[in-house]
Amino acid sequence: MQTAIKVKEDVELRNPVLIEGLPGLGSVGAIAVSYMIKELKAMKFAELYSPFFPHHVIVDKDGNVRLLRAEFYFSRAGDRDVILLTGDSQAQTIYGQYEMVSKILDFVKKYGVKVIITLGGYYATVRGESPRVICASTDPALQSIFLNSGAVSSPTNNPIAGAAGLFLGLARLRGMDAACLLGETAGHMPDPRAAKSVLTVLCEALRFKISLNDLDEAIKRSDRIVKSVREIERKVESFERTLRRRKEGITYIS
Amino acid sequence: MQTAIKVKEDVELRNPVLIEGLPGLGSVGAIAVSYMIKELKAMKFAELYSPFFPHHVIVDKDGNVRLLRAEFYFSRAGDRDVILLTGDSQAQTIYGQYEMVSKILDFVKKYGVKVIITLGGYYATVRGESPRVICASTDPALQSIFLNSGAVSSPTNNPIAGAAGLFLGLARLRGMDAACLLGETAGHMPDPRAAKSVLTVLCEALRFKISLNDLDEAIKRSDRIVKSVREIERKVESFERTLRRRKEGITYIS
Amino acid sequence: MQTAIKVKEDVELRNPVLIEGLPGLGSVGAIAVSYMIKELKAMKFAELYSPFFPHHVIVDKDGNVRLLRAEFYFSRAGDRDVILLTGDSQAQTIYGQYEMVSKILDFVKKYGVKVIITLGGYYATVRGESPRVICASTDPALQSIFLNSGAVSSPTNNPIAGAAGLFLGLARLRGMDAACLLGETAGHMPDPRAAKSVLTVLCEALRFKISLNDLDEAIKRSDRIVKSVREIERKVESFERTLRRRKEGITYIS
Amino acid sequence: MQTAIKVKEDVELRNPVLIEGLPGLGSVGAIAVSYMIKELKAMKFAELYSPFFPHHVIVDKDGNVRLLRAEFYFSRAGDRDVILLTGDSQAQTIYGQYEMVSKILDFVKKYGVKVIITLGGYYATVRGESPRVICASTDPALQSIFLNSGAVSSPTNNPIAGAAGLFLGLARLRGMDAACLLGETAGHMPDPRAAKSVLTVLCEALRFKISLNDLDEAIKRSDRIVKSVREIERKVESFERTLRRRKEGITYIS
Repeated sequence: MQTAIKVKEDVELRNPVLIEGLPGLGSVGAIAVSYMIKELKAMKFAELYSPFFPHHVIVDKDGNVRLLRAEFYFSRAGDRDVILLTGDSQAQTIYGQYEMVSKILDFVKKYGVKVIITLGGYYATVRGESPRVICASTDPALQSIFLNSGAVSSPTNNPIAGAAGLFLGLARLRGMDAACLLGETAGHMPDPRAAKSVLTVLCEALRFKISLNDLDEAIKRSDRIVKSVREIERKVESFERTLRRRKEGITYIS
Repeated sequence: MQTAIKVKEDVELRNPVLIEGLPGLGSVGAIAVSYMIKELKAMKFAELYSPFFPHHVIVDKDGNVRLLRAEFYFSRAGDRDVILLTGDSQAQTIYGQYEMVSKILDFVKKYGVKVIITLGGYYATVRGESPRVICASTDPALQSIFLNSGAVSSPTNNPIAGAAGLFLGLARLRGMDAACLLGETAGHMPDPRAAKSVLTVLCEALRFKISLNDLDEAIKRSDRIVKSVREIERKVESFERTLRRRKEGITYIS
Repeated sequence: MQTAIKVKEDVELRNPVLIEGLPGLGSVGAIAVSYMIKELKAMKFAELYSPFFPHHVIVDKDGNVRLLRAEFYFSRAGDRDVILLTGDSQAQTIYGQYEMVSKILDFVKKYGVKVIITLGGYYATVRGESPRVICASTDPALQSIFLNSGAVSSPTNNPIAGAAGLFLGLARLRGMDAACLLGETAGHMPDPRAAKSVLTVLCEALRFKISLNDLDEAIKRSDRIVKSVREIERKVESFERTLRRRKEGITYIS
Repeated sequence: MQTAIKVKEDVELRNPVLIEGLPGLGSVGAIAVSYMIKELKAMKFAELYSPFFPHHVIVDKDGNVRLLRAEFYFSRAGDRDVILLTGDSQAQTIYGQYEMVSKILDFVKKYGVKVIITLGGYYATVRGESPRVICASTDPALQSIFLNSGAVSSPTNNPIAGAAGLFLGLARLRGMDAACLLGETAGHMPDPRAAKSVLTVLCEALRFKISLNDLDEAIKRSDRIVKSVREIERKVESFERTLRRRKEGITYIS
C-alpha cells in the first residue's frame, strides 16, 4: 500500500496558497486550520490515506468507522484562493514524514500552488496573554510580510520538527516559497490561544477578513481546564508534602 | 520477499462474506473463527506468508516446522457462503498491518466478497456473565443488523487498533461494507466467554445455525485458570504485606 | 542498496546439502560450521553483503577493513557435496531476516540444493556433560535420520527464532526439505561443547568422517573462562552481602 | 522520496580523492573537513537530500529554512584535486546508512574518484596533548602511506561504526581504495584538538600545504569550556557529598 490522495471533486483554483495545520505541539496548527475551514465555509475536495499513519481506525460522529486521513479543503472567499490541509495525524516514521510531505507538495503543485504556509506550535515555558508567533521562511520577501504582520523571526539554528518544518525544506527543493507561523505554547494540551495568535498574523498578512471571536469561547474553556488541572496538582503536591513530613517525623523523632 | 498468498484449491463461492479473526486482545477473534471453522467443517483453500510476521517458525502438532501464516477457509454450509480467516499472528509493524490487510482485501475481492466482518476483543475492566459485544461499521444498514442481533454501538472517537479496525477502514476505501464485533474482555488471557458472546451476535445476524455449546467447556476451563491465578496473586500479596510490616516493625519499633 | 551475493569462483556440485551456521545463541552454529570448514578444507566461492547487517565494518586479521558479510564455502570431501554457510551476523530486522534467508535459498537452489540443515543453540538452564541436540524438520524422513543419529525431537509449539528457524519455514515453501539441529546451551558465551554435540549428530547422520578432537581444546578453554567468571561473581556477591549487613547493622543497632 | 544528489555546478576533476567528514564522535570529521573547505577555498558543487536524515529543518545564518543535507565541495589547490564531503547529519537507520554511502560512492565514481579517505573520532578515555590518529584501510599501500605520516594502525577486530567505516567497506566492494583516519577523543563535545591531529596526518600524507594554526584558537576555546564544565561538576559533586554526609549524620548520630 502506498500513500494515496483521493480526489473527491474537481476544482480549479487561481494561484492558491496552501495552508497546512496537521496535529502537532498544542494542536495549534490543527485548531487554526479547522477554524479557518469553518469560518471560510471551505469545501473538502480530496483525502489522503497512508500506511505511515497509526494503524487504528476511528469511529466518527456519524457512528461510521474510517481510516485516519488528511483532508484538503478549498475556499475562494478571501483575497486569494486557499487550499487548507488538516487531518488526524502526522506520519509516524521519519521516512513517512518525508514521503507524505513530498506527495502533498507534488499534489498541490498541480493546482498551481507556489506558496505554502504551515501553522504550528512553538514550545515556550513562559508566555504572555497573547503568545508570540515565531516565523521562519525559505524566502526573505515572504518573511518580511509576516514580520510586518506581527510575527517575530525564528532564532538561528532553531530546529523545526515534523510537517511544519519539512514542508518548508521540501518546498524549497521544488522552487516553491514557504513559511511557518508557530504560536508559543506549553504544548501539553490543545491551545486555542496560541492558535488565535497564529491566525491573527496570518489573516493580517493574507488580508483575510475572518472574525476570530468564536475562538475566545474555546480559550475560556481551555483556561478553565488548565486552572482546574493546576489546582488538582497543587492539592496532590501539598498532600504528598504532608505525607513525606509525617514519614520523616516517624524516622527522625520517635 | 513480499507478502504472498498461496492458493491451495480453486473454489467458486456465491457472494461470500469474509469473517476475520486473527490473534489479538484476549484472542477473542481467533477463538471465535477457529470454532466456526470446526463447526462448519470449513475447508482450507489458501495460505498467506509475510515478512511482516515475527521471524520465528513453529513446530506444529505433527512435529513439522512451518512459517507463521494466516489461513483462508471456506464453507457453504450456512445461508451464505463464508470465507473464514485466522492465523498465527498479526503483522508486526504499522506499515505491515496496512500492507497485509490491503493484500487480503484485494485477494478476497476476486471471490466476490462485498461484506467483511472482523471479530475481536474490547478492553473492559468490569463485565457481566455475558460480555457485551461492541459493534462499529462502515455502513448504517450493516450496523443496524448487528444492533438488532444483540450488539451495542461503539462510542464515538473510539480508536479500533490493528487488523480488526484496519479491515473496516481499508474496505471502505475499496467500496466494500464492513463491520467489527468486539467482545468485552480483560484481555490478558485467551477468553472463550467473550468469543461466545461475539459468535452469538454473529450467528443471529447471519442466520448461522451453529451450536455454541462446545465453547462452554472451554469457558469452564478458562474460569478455573483465572480462579487459580487470582488465588496465587492473593497469596503473594498477603505474603508481601506480612514481609513489609515485619520490615517496618524493625525500623519503627526496635 | 540490496542484499547481494558475489560469486568469487564458479563451482559445480553434485546434489549438495546446505549447512548453515550464522552467529546466534551461544554461537553454536557459527562454531560448528567454522570447524567443519577447517576440517574439510572447504573453499570459499561466494560472499553475501546486505544493508540488513549492522552498520559497522571490521578490521580483519590482515589489517584490512571489510564490510560484515556471510560466506559460502563448498567441500566435496565427504560422502556428499556440501555448501557451508557462516558469517559475521544475522540480519538486524524481521523484514531483513525474511529477505536474506529468501535470497540465500534462491541462490543455493541454483547449485541443486534440495536439503538444508541449520545448526544453532537451544536455551537450557541445566544440561549434562554432553548437551542434548534438539531436532525439528519439515520432513519426517529427514527427522528420523537425525533422531537415529542421537538427536531428540523438539517439543510441539516450540518457536525457533532467527535464521536457524526461518530457513526451515522458507525452504518448505519452496519445496525443499530442511532440518535444524540445536545444541543445548546457557547461551551467554561462545559454547564449543554444544557445537561438538551438534557436530556429533550431524556427522553421524551425513556419514562425515571428521575428527572432533580439536574442539576439546576449545571446550577446556571455555570451561576455564566459565569457572573464573563464576568465581568473580561469587566474590562480588559475598562482598555485597558483607556491605549490606554492615549498612543494616548501622541502621538497626546503633 | 529517494536520497537524491543535486548537482549545482558542472566540474571536471583530475583523479580526485574523496575526503569525508560527516558529523560523528566529537564532530572530529566534520570539524576537519569544514576547516579544509575554508583553508582551500573549496567551492560547493552538489548537495545531497535524504529521507534518512532526521525529520526537522534548520534555520540557517541567513534566516532561511532549509532541509538537512550533505554538501560536496571541490578544490584544485593542492597537489591533487579533492572532493570534500560534510553535512548536517548521518543517516538515521542502518538501512539508510548503507543506502546513503552507496549513493555517494556511485556519484563520486563519475568524477573519477578511486581513493576515499574518511575522517572521524576514536573513543579514548586517556590521551595526550596530541591525540593519536588511528588508521585502517582496504589497501596495504594506502595504509603504509598514513602510517609513515604519523598514524597508528587500528587494532584487529575493531568495529568502525557509521559512515567513517561503511565508506571503506562499500568502496572495497566497488574496487575503490579507502582509508579512515580517526582522532582519539573523549567524544562528548566538539573536539578541534583531535581534528588537528587528523589533519596533520592527512596533510602530510597528501602533501597538502594547509596552515593548521587557525585551529589553535578553537582548541583554546574548547579547553576553556572543558575546564569550566569540570569545575562545575566538581562543585556539584562536593555539594552532593556534603548533603549526603549531613543526611547520614541525621540518621547515624541524632
